[in-house]
Amino acid sequence: MINEFYKQRLQGKSVIRELSEYATARGKEIGYENVFDFSLGNPSVPCPQHYTDAVIKMHQEKDPMEIHGYSPSLGNTAVREIVAASLWRRFGIPYKTEHIFMTSGAAGAIAHAVRLVTKPGDEVIGFAPFFPEYRPYINDSGAKLTIVPADTETFQINFDEFEKMLNENVSAVLINSPNNPSGVVYSEETLSKLARILKKKESEYGHDIFLISDEPYREIVFDGATCPYPAKYYDNTLTCYSFSKSLSLPGERIGYIAVSPTATDAGILAIICGQISRGIGHNCPSSTAQLGAAAVIDETSDLSVYETNRNIIYDTLIELGLTVVKPGGTFYIFPKCLEEDSVAFCNKAKEYDLILVPADGFGAPGFFRMAYCIDTEKVKRAMPVFKKFVNEQYPDR
Amino acid sequence: MINEFYKQRLQGKSVIRELSEYATARGKEIGYENVFDFSLGNPSVPCPQHYTDAVIKMHQEKDPMEIHGYSPSLGNTAVREIVAASLWRRFGIPYKTEHIFMTSGAAGAIAHAVRLVTKPGDEVIGFAPFFPEYRPYINDSGAKLTIVPADTETFQINFDEFEKMLNENVSAVLINSPNNPSGVVYSEETLSKLARILKKKESEYGHDIFLISDEPYREIVFDGATCPYPAKYYDNTLTCYSFSKSLSLPGERIGYIAVSPTATDAGILAIICGQISRGIGHNCPSSTAQLGAAAVIDETSDLSVYETNRNIIYDTLIELGLTVVKPGGTFYIFPKCLEEDSVAFCNKAKEYDLILVPADGFGAPGFFRMAYCIDTEKVKRAMPVFKKFVNEQYPDR
Repeated sequence: MINEFYKQRLQGKSVIRELSEYATARGKEIGYENVFDFSLGNPSVPCPQHYTDAVIKMHQEKDPMEIHGYSPSLGNTAVREIVAASLWRRFGIPYKTEHIFMTSGAAGAIAHAVRLVTKPGDEVIGFAPFFPEYRPYINDSGAKLTIVPADTETFQINFDEFEKMLNENVSAVLINSPNNPSGVVYSEETLSKLARILKKKESEYGHDIFLISDEPYREIVFDGATCPYPAKYYDNTLTCYSFSKSLSLPGERIGYIAVSPTATDAGILAIICGQISRGIGHNCPSSTAQLGAAAVIDETSDLSVYETNRNIIYDTLIELGLTVVKPGGTFYIFPKCLEEDSVAFCNKAKEYDLILVPADGFGAPGFFRMAYCIDTEKVKRAMPVFKKFVNEQYPDR
Repeated sequence: MINEFYKQRLQGKSVIRELSEYATARGKEIGYENVFDFSLGNPSVPCPQHYTDAVIKMHQEKDPMEIHGYSPSLGNTAVREIVAASLWRRFGIPYKTEHIFMTSGAAGAIAHAVRLVTKPGDEVIGFAPFFPEYRPYINDSGAKLTIVPADTETFQINFDEFEKMLNENVSAVLINSPNNPSGVVYSEETLSKLARILKKKESEYGHDIFLISDEPYREIVFDGATCPYPAKYYDNTLTCYSFSKSLSLPGERIGYIAVSPTATDAGILAIICGQISRGIGHNCPSSTAQLGAAAVIDETSDLSVYETNRNIIYDTLIELGLTVVKPGGTFYIFPKCLEEDSVAFCNKAKEYDLILVPADGFGAPGFFRMAYCIDTEKVKRAMPVFKKFVNEQYPDR
């Protein structure tokens, strides 16, 4: 009998996907170059040449049985060692091989992390604005995601609301910095305060509260800054990473969980993840993708285009008088709409072939998201169109 | 709070893994060439050179953004089309792109299939002997796996027991032909009878009963035979496939579900699988592995070594007077032990550095499994050792 729970989901189509499909269809009508599609978060720069070289070389020179053989269930041991050493070097936390669990991207990492530290019925707290896929990630595990409303002034954490919502049933807190959709990087102050509150509550409730830190955009930060590393602030941190954005390899599905060495039971958490895999059909990312990522562990694609695009768009938005927090990273910007109804706002933009995403699904109604992982040339051509849209539709703003 | 359900699993170590680890440790002591390790089902022949060539070529010539970009959530559309066309060509069933869902190997395929056609609490019936990982695959989804005892004469289906166990709560039946661990290929007669019974029960119960057919060994059949294709016998079939064995790519985690075009709601089942992925962190196999497998869709590794090995081992077992069903495929053989306690039997073999797997975990106590995906030279050297073991330990058999 077909599972009705999943079948019903077909009714609720993703707004982002619908817009992206619209953009593709519209592109066929008027030419792709004339559709200004800011809907999708797909990297727009190629992977490093060193990655390509490493993959070609291993296929030319290595024994196929070695590179295509089963990974151990926690991932290729040599790769885990390289990941641990890189994190130790970069963030000063003494990760070892045993703390690393290789995953199919950040989705796989979060799927394991939530099952690792919650049981069905437990609560996971997340913060608006948030990536809408967190809902199925968390809720399908049997835990329940609740969302703290946004601090729309800064898009840091709304601590007043957070403290009100904390309760004994909370076994994990989920953060995402740099943030999709706001582009905001959580400050040291935010992370310190979060850690203080969680430690206090752990002791008050008499149980662990794990911090699940989703960090696919960690390497995309602007203005010469670096992103404060959440695990430095809080012991019980599970760092969920994907190489999708930093190496522009979203199709390879390659990432990891790094268990903080100071977390409760740190030495066995990755092993338990291996047990979780058995039930959800995961069984490691591709062996050659693991080897490829390890070969370029401290490299990234040329990510500078995202900062260039951010500057162009931010300056235009400010010039037009829109309210917007300046993104510190990612390839998203998250301005306030010029009317309350973000769907109406984005529909009007669509008339100008500007594809913007209304933010209701991100838990911040009245805002919209622009993904600027597109060619700078196109971003530049989009700005006069954006100005025309705003000036014509909202002359009295 | 760490999930106790998964943590408890660390207590119950896999017998196969323990034996394999023992073999590795023993190899360090006396040299790997002197340990006759029949424990693990890892392909022992390289992938086709055409696969390697295709992967190298795509990395040399294609746009990295194209080959490493996100797959659509059901898999690369062109790859799905190639898979569908190949299945149609080979088995005469008119699969289309919409019937194919790309997965991370057979594990990913079964994880989706079981969630697709059961709800928590439903029953899935499997048949002994069976691959022990079916337990977590099924049980962790919330459904419940029950096992029909083996027909130890033939290792076809024990239909008397099956019919007794069928009940209204059964929403899926799981088969695996060619079979791990028995090596037996289900006959046309078996599949026809299974289909007749299921059709009758569907009408009696007034609901679908889906056949989940796990077929990673489909291409490894002996004596010039081909493996009867279950979907030809029963409409509501979900064919779960992995390229791990046929292309010797277990580390690449690449497979698919093929929904029979005549299944109930056939046109939307793959789409629903895409919804299931959102909650279990799956999100498609590696994009380049999909493209690589599609490039050699109708090829296999040189699988002839497995038949050679089967012949050598089968002849020796018969010569020694053991009871064994001749495998029609796979790289396993499943003889009866020479004493009731299969663990004791295999422990005695271990004294001769013969690593055999006791079959209790496969649901057929009193038998043992030998995986002969190893070099023929080593199989030949193992036979005198096996003879010595049997003759010394069971002189009066």
